[in-house]
Amino acid sequence: MHCSTAGVAPGYVQGNLAILPKDLAEDFLRFCQQNPKPCPIIGVSEVGDPRIPGLGLDLDIRTDVPGYRVWQDGDLVDETTDLAAWWRDDLVSFVLGCSFSFEQALIEDGLQMRHMASGLTVPMYRTDIACVPAGPFWGPMVVSMRPFNPAQAIRAIEITSRFPAVHGAPIHIGLPELIGIKDLAKPDYGDCVELRSDELPVFWACGVTPQAVIVAAKPSFAITHAPGRMLVTDLQNAQLAVHGERKEELS
Amino acid sequence: MHCSTAGVAPGYVQGNLAILPKDLAEDFLRFCQQNPKPCPIIGVSEVGDPRIPGLGLDLDIRTDVPGYRVWQDGDLVDETTDLAAWWRDDLVSFVLGCSFSFEQALIEDGLQMRHMASGLTVPMYRTDIACVPAGPFWGPMVVSMRPFNPAQAIRAIEITSRFPAVHGAPIHIGLPELIGIKDLAKPDYGDCVELRSDELPVFWACGVTPQAVIVAAKPSFAITHAPGRMLVTDLQNAQLAVHGERKEELS
Repeated sequence: MHCSTAGVAPGYVQGNLAILPKDLAEDFLRFCQQNPKPCPIIGVSEVGDPRIPGLGLDLDIRTDVPGYRVWQDGDLVDETTDLAAWWRDDLVSFVLGCSFSFEQALIEDGLQMRHMASGLTVPMYRTDIACVPAGPFWGPMVVSMRPFNPAQAIRAIEITSRFPAVHGAPIHIGLPELIGIKDLAKPDYGDCVELRSDELPVFWACGVTPQAVIVAAKPSFAITHAPGRMLVTDLQNAQLAVHGERKEELS
Repeated sequence: MHCSTAGVAPGYVQGNLAILPKDLAEDFLRFCQQNPKPCPIIGVSEVGDPRIPGLGLDLDIRTDVPGYRVWQDGDLVDETTDLAAWWRDDLVSFVLGCSFSFEQALIEDGLQMRHMASGLTVPMYRTDIACVPAGPFWGPMVVSMRPFNPAQAIRAIEITSRFPAVHGAPIHIGLPELIGIKDLAKPDYGDCVELRSDELPVFWACGVTPQAVIVAAKPSFAITHAPGRMLVTDLQNAQLAVHGERKEELS
């Protein structure tokens, strides 16, 4: 049960998990809505309700994520595979889109990603772009980087712009110093990946952003997924694609 | 009558013109179909027919373009505003999409273009990208360049990818040396435009490509529009926008 969900149930949407008490959940919802690129909400529960029917009719958020981390006042107090002992009637669950979905769309278009080909974790960087704060939640946007040659980069932008529910189009391309990244060889999370002379670094907003923001806020109580062990939903990645004016209908 | 059509009839599609005898028209049609980014066909006439109803019910291609150039064996033999004296029953007219349409979409999204703000013609460059040849038609792709900061460049890619009938998404970004452009300060056509240190050069396939290819092929007979004096059609730019899978329906 310690394996990552990367590559599990291909084609199905995976999501990052954040569970917060009601009062903090209101602030966090506002934080996500104001920072949709790093924090794209794909599901949110009713207060105290462990179900999120939009992501799976039989989903129980207390047992269906393969690994949980429980936090109190910013300290990690438990790692578990079942939240029965920790569940409370005031908890609200948030599921946020993750890059696995758009990476699948890129692969299906024939674009290879070097971190995958090299068996590495995508490199991630803290930027100097401040998220819009909401209550106790604030902090820098974290981005993931994938190197592509210019034609591939343009294609990757076209494809991922159709998936706003899973970070959408990149937030930056080339010129990493403009967003406060001093050395691409030294990512803040993940592994260093080679950038070749005929390539541009392409940066997407990253789901580590809300996880880092929650931990930094030291909430009285919070639950997140264990790294790499996401919620696998019943939604298919293709269902997240939008086409111009249909965007509003789907969101 | 010597003014450019730039800025005329805002919102309406303008097009580049190429008129060729039937035998050459077959090769040129194949050339355009194989090089859709520089040569996006938005209208083609029947042989000998001066009408193109899809672009305007009362359109007469012999009189409705504000300036024509007539070519024989590669030599410019006439500049005129009326083709009555030159019309032949074997002529086929092609109207190709031009960048005015996608530039309008960028402006409507709030993106400014420096060549416009500076009152200059967009800089254009011959690349080392060879078009796919067809019969006597072959040559390098010509591109136009617009500088944008990275976030604007990403937005410009998203917007123009919806307009394949008017050159579509850029073909290149950053790293001009990779497509054979040695000095951005020395465009092959148009004016030099400043590139700032926080910007990337973004390159779109350009309608000068087919014009240059036709002149280089030295056809026995050909008619093109005079530079900057395009056909103004009855189509609206917004009608050219496509949304994902609807692309095929519209083309």
